[in-house]
Amino acid sequence: MIKVAINGYGVIGRRVADIVSIQPDMQLIGIGKTRPDYKADIAVQKGYHLYIPEEYHKDFAGTKIKPQGTTYDLIKSADVIVDATPGNIGIKNKDIYKELGKPALFQGGESDEIAEMSFVAQVNYDDAKGKQVVRVVSCNTTGLCRALKSLDDAFGVGKTRAVIARRATDPDDPKKGPIDSVALDPVTIPSHHGPDVETVMPHMNVVTMAMKIPTTHMHLHSLIVSLKGTGVTPEMIANTFAETPRVTLVSSKNGIKSTAHAMDYARELGRNRSDMYENVIWEDSITVNDNEAYFFMGVHQESIVVPENIDAIRAVLGTCSRDESMKTTNKTLSISGPPN
Amino acid sequence: MIKVAINGYGVIGRRVADIVSIQPDMQLIGIGKTRPDYKADIAVQKGYHLYIPEEYHKDFAGTKIKPQGTTYDLIKSADVIVDATPGNIGIKNKDIYKELGKPALFQGGESDEIAEMSFVAQVNYDDAKGKQVVRVVSCNTTGLCRALKSLDDAFGVGKTRAVIARRATDPDDPKKGPIDSVALDPVTIPSHHGPDVETVMPHMNVVTMAMKIPTTHMHLHSLIVSLKGTGVTPEMIANTFAETPRVTLVSSKNGIKSTAHAMDYARELGRNRSDMYENVIWEDSITVNDNEAYFFMGVHQESIVVPENIDAIRAVLGTCSRDESMKTTNKTLSISGPPN
Repeated sequence: MIKVAINGYGVIGRRVADIVSIQPDMQLIGIGKTRPDYKADIAVQKGYHLYIPEEYHKDFAGTKIKPQGTTYDLIKSADVIVDATPGNIGIKNKDIYKELGKPALFQGGESDEIAEMSFVAQVNYDDAKGKQVVRVVSCNTTGLCRALKSLDDAFGVGKTRAVIARRATDPDDPKKGPIDSVALDPVTIPSHHGPDVETVMPHMNVVTMAMKIPTTHMHLHSLIVSLKGTGVTPEMIANTFAETPRVTLVSSKNGIKSTAHAMDYARELGRNRSDMYENVIWEDSITVNDNEAYFFMGVHQESIVVPENIDAIRAVLGTCSRDESMKTTNKTLSISGPPN
Repeated sequence: MIKVAINGYGVIGRRVADIVSIQPDMQLIGIGKTRPDYKADIAVQKGYHLYIPEEYHKDFAGTKIKPQGTTYDLIKSADVIVDATPGNIGIKNKDIYKELGKPALFQGGESDEIAEMSFVAQVNYDDAKGKQVVRVVSCNTTGLCRALKSLDDAFGVGKTRAVIARRATDPDDPKKGPIDSVALDPVTIPSHHGPDVETVMPHMNVVTMAMKIPTTHMHLHSLIVSLKGTGVTPEMIANTFAETPRVTLVSSKNGIKSTAHAMDYARELGRNRSDMYENVIWEDSITVNDNEAYFFMGVHQESIVVPENIDAIRAVLGTCSRDESMKTTNKTLSISGPPN
C-alpha cells in the first residue's frame, strides 16, 4: 500500500483525499490542515487523521478536533505527498519534502519552475517515474492537454486558438467577483494557459485568450484547432473523442445546452460532490471549416485534476503502468468510456 | 427637416428618439407605442407625441397619456420610419410602410430577407440611397463590421474567427437567464453573427461562436483576424483603430480591465443613458501572432446601433453624404475621434 499524505484540504485536497482513500493500492495516512472549520469537522467524521502545523495547534484548542501531530510528522510517515496548499504556498513546503526525501506532487497554481515536470496522465505518465517534484497542471491546462493530445494523435494538430471563459470563483468562495461583468484576465494576450500547455506538450503552438465571468461552475473553452490531416469530418473528430479517456461527449439534442446542464448531468450520475472529472465536449458543436476544428468544451475547475493526482502518485513511485493506473483510477471514480 | 416616425419604444426606439430629436436636420414627429408604462410617461414628459394602434387605445383610458392618433396616422405623416418593434414584429409592419410609400429602417432582430440591404454606415452608406427597406444590422454585427472594415482597408483581412460572450439580458429585462451558467447560444457553430457580417461585407469569411453569460451590459468579442498584409505590428493596428470612426481604444493601464469599467467610462463621459456608442477595443490586448491579430472588443448592445439608425435615415433619403452625416451624428452624440 502506498502511504499518501495530503497537505492542504481546500478545493483539490479534500477531493483527492476522498479518492485516494478508495484506491485499492493506497492508504490515506493523514491530512495537513491549518483551520478548525466545517471541512475539518467532516474530515474527522470520515475518519481522516488531521495533522496541524505546530503554530496552529492553539486554534484547535477547545474544538472537538484533536491533531494527530504536526504536518512534519505526517510528511515523515508518507511515501508521497500531494501538496494541495493554496497557490504559491507549495513552494515554501518544497524544501521540507526534499529534506525528508519524499516525492511530492504540486498543483497547477504553482509556477512550472517549481517542478521537474508538468504532468497530465495520458500525455506523459511514464516520464514521472522517479521524479521527486512533479506539478499536476491546472484544470484548464489539463483539459486542453487531454483534448489536444487526442486530436494530435489522430489527425496532427498545427496551431490552436482558444478563448477561455473562466468561472469567476468557486462555489465555496463567495467573496470574489466579478458580478455582472466580464473581466479580461488578463487583458494581454496570450493568457498563461497556452504556454502552460506547451510545458506538457512542447511541440504544441497554443494561443489562449481568457476572461472571468460571473459563474461558479466550469470554465468554458471555445476551441479553434488547425488540423494537419485533411478531409477530417466532425464525425471523425467525435469518434476520436469518444475513444479518448476522461472526455465525455454531450449533446444539446440530449438537453445539455449549458454548463448548468453539464453540472446537473454530474449530479444525476451520483458523483461524489457532484463532480465532473471528464472534459465535457459538445458533440453537436464540433464543426470543421477550412481544415480547422471548432468546438465547445467545459472544464469543471474543482475536479478535473483529481484523477491526474491519483495517477501521478503511482507514476512517480513507478508502481504500475499508465494503462493500469488510469484504469483503476477511472473505475473508482465511475468514469465511463475507454479506460485509458 | 426630415420628418421621422419611430415605431416601437423599447431598447433601441427610445434611444433613437432622443437622438433624432437633437439632429439639426430632423424632426421627431411621433412614436408608435402600445403600452402605457413608465417609458410612455417619460416620453410624454419629454414632449414626444405618442401614437397608439387603435386596438390598444383602451389600455390608455384612465391614464394621463392622450394618444395623438393611431400608428397609421403617424406613418402617413412621416418621411421615413424607424421600425424598432420587437424582433419578427417588424415584418408585419412592412406592408403598411410599403402601402404608404414610406422608406423604412428595420433593426437587426429581423431576418436579412426582410430588407433590400443590411446597413452599417461606414461600410455601405451610399448603397442605401433610394432604398425603401433597409435593415440596420444587430449590435454584434455592427461592431464586427466597423472593426473588420477598418482592418480590411488597412491591411487586408483573410479569415476572421470570433468568440462572442453575449450579455444574457438587458438591464430592464430581469426575467431572463442564465444565472451562474454559460449557455451555448447556439451549441452549433457558426452562430448567425458571422454570416450576418457577410450580408454587409460579402467578401468576408467570418466564423463566430457564441454563448450567453450572466451579465447585462456589453457583449465581449474575442477576435482572431488573419491579415493579408505581412509585418503588421500591434502598434500599426492600434493606430488604425485610433483613426477609425466609432471605435474607442481603452487600456488596462488606464484602469479599464472589464466591461464594467468600460460602461463606467460611458457614465463618466456623461452620455445619455450612460451609453457607449463606440466599439470598445482594448489597446493592450492587441497582439499579432503568425500574422493573426488578436484583440478583445466590447459592444454595448443597447446603443451601438443608435448612430447607424441616424445615418441610415439620411442615407435612404439621400440628403447628404456619408461623411457629412457621420460627422453630424457623432457631434450630437459627443463621439470623439475621427468624424467619419
